[in-house]
Amino acid sequence: MKKIWLTDTTLRDGSHSVSHQYSIDQAVTIAKALDDAEIDIIEISHGDGLAGSSLQYGFSKATDNDLIKEVSGVIKNSKLAVLILPGIGTSADLEIARKYGAEVARVATHVTEADVSQQHIKVAKSMGMKTVGFLMMVHMAPVENLVEQAKLMESYGADIVYCTDSSGALLPDGVKERITALKENLSVDIGFHAHDNLNLAIGNSLAAIEAGATYVDCSLNGAGAGAGNARTESLVAVLKKSGYETNADLYKTLDTAEKVFRKIVPEATRPNDLTLMLGYAGVYSSFLLHTYKAAEKFHVDPREILVELGKRKVVGGQEDSIIEVAYEMSQKK
Amino acid sequence: MKKIWLTDTTLRDGSHSVSHQYSIDQAVTIAKALDDAEIDIIEISHGDGLAGSSLQYGFSKATDNDLIKEVSGVIKNSKLAVLILPGIGTSADLEIARKYGAEVARVATHVTEADVSQQHIKVAKSMGMKTVGFLMMVHMAPVENLVEQAKLMESYGADIVYCTDSSGALLPDGVKERITALKENLSVDIGFHAHDNLNLAIGNSLAAIEAGATYVDCSLNGAGAGAGNARTESLVAVLKKSGYETNADLYKTLDTAEKVFRKIVPEATRPNDLTLMLGYAGVYSSFLLHTYKAAEKFHVDPREILVELGKRKVVGGQEDSIIEVAYEMSQKK
Repeated sequence: MKKIWLTDTTLRDGSHSVSHQYSIDQAVTIAKALDDAEIDIIEISHGDGLAGSSLQYGFSKATDNDLIKEVSGVIKNSKLAVLILPGIGTSADLEIARKYGAEVARVATHVTEADVSQQHIKVAKSMGMKTVGFLMMVHMAPVENLVEQAKLMESYGADIVYCTDSSGALLPDGVKERITALKENLSVDIGFHAHDNLNLAIGNSLAAIEAGATYVDCSLNGAGAGAGNARTESLVAVLKKSGYETNADLYKTLDTAEKVFRKIVPEATRPNDLTLMLGYAGVYSSFLLHTYKAAEKFHVDPREILVELGKRKVVGGQEDSIIEVAYEMSQKK
Repeated sequence: MKKIWLTDTTLRDGSHSVSHQYSIDQAVTIAKALDDAEIDIIEISHGDGLAGSSLQYGFSKATDNDLIKEVSGVIKNSKLAVLILPGIGTSADLEIARKYGAEVARVATHVTEADVSQQHIKVAKSMGMKTVGFLMMVHMAPVENLVEQAKLMESYGADIVYCTDSSGALLPDGVKERITALKENLSVDIGFHAHDNLNLAIGNSLAAIEAGATYVDCSLNGAGAGAGNARTESLVAVLKKSGYETNADLYKTLDTAEKVFRKIVPEATRPNDLTLMLGYAGVYSSFLLHTYKAAEKFHVDPREILVELGKRKVVGGQEDSIIEVAYEMSQKK
């Protein structure tokens, strides 16, 4: 029976659902319940990773360091993970996180930028952390590029490489193709992180597992950026029903989702036409607000702007393209 | 390019989300928008089918006849369907529905009870209606029985046979296995109706299509019994993204979900630990209330009762089993 290792990211990706406003008490309460339900790994940090708390990404209520320190003090079964995006977080942030109790480092880059992860992966490894290379927005690169970038992360020392569907844009076939290629070309374990924009988070996670992924991300009630992630409670139920092995306890996971987390965050995700369009177009959620502003200004359909941005494969930092696309569309009309 | 035909059941299965309280005006507004979005078939009737309005199933605000008459008067592109469960609705109900404008009859039975559909399928056919045999709770029967029952419906004259995952209990592999067997053994078109208990409604619908289904059910914002159905707007997006052909217009469908339907029904579904357990255990939602009452009385975990009921394959009408199971569990403790 194949064993699947779960990383719950309620306290990291899910912090987008509360605009990074978890209090220490809330984080400790949630982590304790996840730990008791024997979720393998609990990820904690600002939604945009260590040191994400800022004017640009939103200030968090509690500092990463305090969150890590207090949560690591109460968990017994789970390992504590942090996310770091090189460029936002630094090696120094990672060292402090390690000191305060983080045992797993997830080093995240855009799917074509694995080379910027080298330093942080090496630092994490040198501190004895289990180290994950986390390739984001994987739908934007051809499969052979994804494999090439994943191999770079493997060469830097990553123990696991993740395939991350950041805008929930993949279909099950696309997931299978990518995980199969990664399994064929890498020796390390492969992970998958879904988003639910097209309501395929659980379906895609299952497809990833069938194709060979052994690490899967999830969050309570699907908390997370955009349309949110694969629901931890559903994933545990589906794994057990499919006959995969997991350390997680189903009833305790359900209680954590319903009796612990929902009391703190009554409505973690709110799928709507906008989150759906992000998945359809394959565009990251940070483009949404600017797109709607540009659509209003140039009297064009914001959904058509998103589709065009997806075709042009724009990435974070290229927000100027939104105006360009909106202007061009208005001229064509 | 394979063409997929959509049946939106917001005004039938989705009426469970509003306790069957759609007004005529609301139904007309929703149907007009669906028709404008070119959804192929719009199903309308009490959630439990024609003549479902009753003390047992809940009284509806407007009668089936008035709903059918008013809605059929405004739709131009879509065909209007009604659901009938022999035993609840009669041939006379079907005849009136036909007179008022219904063009499609969906005759629903438990997966092992296809023989009770014979009379109604023949009546529907004789009135020139497109006729669907709708086999419910398919997870409860071995695949060979499902095929045998589907062949009965085909022999009665059904133009399409549906495989209906009433409690959202199937995994994608189970869907594929069933649809593949139906395709191999029947000549008529095959349909699939998902429920979202395990968050697999869209994933399972895609699996059904890959295996050969050409008719798929859906509802706006997933409205429907239990955890609800596959979201119409997500299904249209996923079909277009997968390269399947559909008559539906994506943007108009999104507007129907977000700007029309959500204004009438702000929260159509609310997935929680209970709806998830129904899918996990494979038990119909009508057992839920009785299960929780019995659990309280006998001090046992309601989730364990549901799992045991699923194992015993209890069906509607066997609610006595709940007390039996709860009592046995309390004795074992």
